[in-house]
Amino acid sequence: MEFIIDNEWFYKAISDVNKAVSLKTPFPILSGIKVIAYNDSLVLIGSNSDIVIEKVIPLTVDGVKVLEVHKTGSVVIPAKHLSEIIKKLPAKVHVRVNEKQVVTIQSEEIVTKIFGFNSEQYPKLPLIDETNYAKIPCTELIEIIKQTAFAVSKSESRPVLTGVNISFKDHYLSFAATDSHRLALRELVLESSINGSFIVPSASLNELTKLIHNDNGEIRIYVTSSYMAFKTSSFTLFSRLIEGNYPNITGLLPKNAKTTIILDTAQLLTGIDRACLFASEWKNNNVQLEIVDGKKIKISSNSSNIGEIEETQNIKMINGETDLTISLDGSYLINALKAIKEEEIRLSFGDTMRPVLIEPINNPSYIHLISPVRSY
Amino acid sequence: MEFIIDNEWFYKAISDVNKAVSLKTPFPILSGIKVIAYNDSLVLIGSNSDIVIEKVIPLTVDGVKVLEVHKTGSVVIPAKHLSEIIKKLPAKVHVRVNEKQVVTIQSEEIVTKIFGFNSEQYPKLPLIDETNYAKIPCTELIEIIKQTAFAVSKSESRPVLTGVNISFKDHYLSFAATDSHRLALRELVLESSINGSFIVPSASLNELTKLIHNDNGEIRIYVTSSYMAFKTSSFTLFSRLIEGNYPNITGLLPKNAKTTIILDTAQLLTGIDRACLFASEWKNNNVQLEIVDGKKIKISSNSSNIGEIEETQNIKMINGETDLTISLDGSYLINALKAIKEEEIRLSFGDTMRPVLIEPINNPSYIHLISPVRSY
Repeated sequence: MEFIIDNEWFYKAISDVNKAVSLKTPFPILSGIKVIAYNDSLVLIGSNSDIVIEKVIPLTVDGVKVLEVHKTGSVVIPAKHLSEIIKKLPAKVHVRVNEKQVVTIQSEEIVTKIFGFNSEQYPKLPLIDETNYAKIPCTELIEIIKQTAFAVSKSESRPVLTGVNISFKDHYLSFAATDSHRLALRELVLESSINGSFIVPSASLNELTKLIHNDNGEIRIYVTSSYMAFKTSSFTLFSRLIEGNYPNITGLLPKNAKTTIILDTAQLLTGIDRACLFASEWKNNNVQLEIVDGKKIKISSNSSNIGEIEETQNIKMINGETDLTISLDGSYLINALKAIKEEEIRLSFGDTMRPVLIEPINNPSYIHLISPVRSY
Repeated sequence: MEFIIDNEWFYKAISDVNKAVSLKTPFPILSGIKVIAYNDSLVLIGSNSDIVIEKVIPLTVDGVKVLEVHKTGSVVIPAKHLSEIIKKLPAKVHVRVNEKQVVTIQSEEIVTKIFGFNSEQYPKLPLIDETNYAKIPCTELIEIIKQTAFAVSKSESRPVLTGVNISFKDHYLSFAATDSHRLALRELVLESSINGSFIVPSASLNELTKLIHNDNGEIRIYVTSSYMAFKTSSFTLFSRLIEGNYPNITGLLPKNAKTTIILDTAQLLTGIDRACLFASEWKNNNVQLEIVDGKKIKISSNSSNIGEIEETQNIKMINGETDLTISLDGSYLINALKAIKEEEIRLSFGDTMRPVLIEPINNPSYIHLISPVRSY
């Protein structure tokens, strides 16, 4: 194998696949990046037990030549050292591999040798059915992930809750996440030939958002028996699926509200953020909401050891009963409010111990539920 | 005590004194900031066992009113909560303290109460003799600290070596630091009426550089029996002195060199930095330097498990013997080269196990010594 490549493009691709490479793996070969030189491209693969990232570098990018392949072939190179070296090389790099898997990397007057691994021992990629897929703009996928993935359970006691439930039904896609105290649900219409319900680890989706980053193109979603694959023109990310049945969430959505109020999203967020300063003494970051004078909301928290904080904000519109006091987990409320980009939100309250429904005004595609906490 | 203050100025001052406040102190009052309202200024004090930082906020800054004192007095406020609250308040803050040390902080519609401490229990500041001091521009002091403080010992086995030896003799000031494997020495002439040799913890000096930051003014240095104080128009930092005798370093400076070479500082730094990639397997980050063909220097390192790296750079000038191979700790060399802003440096080599002398060209005020390491 022999090729000459632009050092910055090479480093960028190494950094991307490196996100899937773990240094703690018991299999030394998995701490490496598989590099495959084809006549028309260079492919880099990094993987761990949860995700596989495949990155493709073509011969030219935007008309500029970035790669020249002299001899096809493949090798696995220790990821940490490859990444550190390429980062510090000043100009384009010349990579050669001999029959003993010794990788020679030269850039100007600098010559480096790294001991590689035989690529035959590297695990094969999952196979995908190229004909069955859903298609969505990258920017929209990032938004959906950011609106839901934070709500998954951090505890491993119910593994299905650590993932996001991604369901395809005809042309509808929904993302749902819950840790059993709160729920985030986002729906949308898209072009798809997939049907079914899958659970994807939230960590995989978070890595996906970093990989997509500034990509303005489209992404295709494929499903295999044990993987979901996300593919753009420059990379593919394969994520393991979580096995098991996701709980039925439609029954959780409250039907009748005793009180609904409309508030300014950004103002409520800064108010809750401030109230959380004293809420951290409580196990559930207790923040109290109370309707006062039928037209204002008082946000407060207190700690017997440290002090207390309170502020009042105007309610933009109120319907139903005006007698309301409730305690919520402030950090949950902050998560939910940060996921909403609309200027105003509607909060709907049922009985004191029923979940609060949070909806952005003029956007029926996203809803959020938070269960109250006891304030004593 | 009662005052109204610009929230941004207050937060900045709190952040500055907070650098001296430890959350882990066994004395609760020391986890607080002492706030003193005078008729013409607000003074904030934070301290731990090593340093005390005192910050003064005047009534006006650059003609703009930032402070209004309604009632003089003092209180100690828990630093962590004070800092978090002030950071999140939207506008100027109104602070009041009642006779039970309850501090009420109000900004617009937001009201916070924090339980404070009686300031009588807070330790007194060290007294300084205002007539005896040395004076130096802030920017110069920062440079001197950055050129020396990194070379102190990280081990507590010889406490005096964990500090920087600051010596005043007539109008000469010197900063010296060594961990017994390398030495950094910087000298300068200044206006001073202090004589004597003192050892200041490097951590105190590093805090000082952060406090000075962008200050273009002058700083005065005072000495008491157990403290060195650094005073500008806006703050005073008191640092504890380390007791003991600093080793005599003048005997360490090598007299005769077998070989001296002149190199490009930045180029050598990047070369050593790259060579360190493989040097980390060695206890001492071994990097080899070798003169080849009498006019080039080869920089290399290798690891039996991972690989090797080498590069050659041009020597700008060489004097003496041209037969030289030596191993140095690459991380020490990086530290030394980063402290030199001149474009060229002179390296002087004696016998294989004698320290290497590093001097910037055209600047006799700074020298650096590094002992070689064994390469087997």
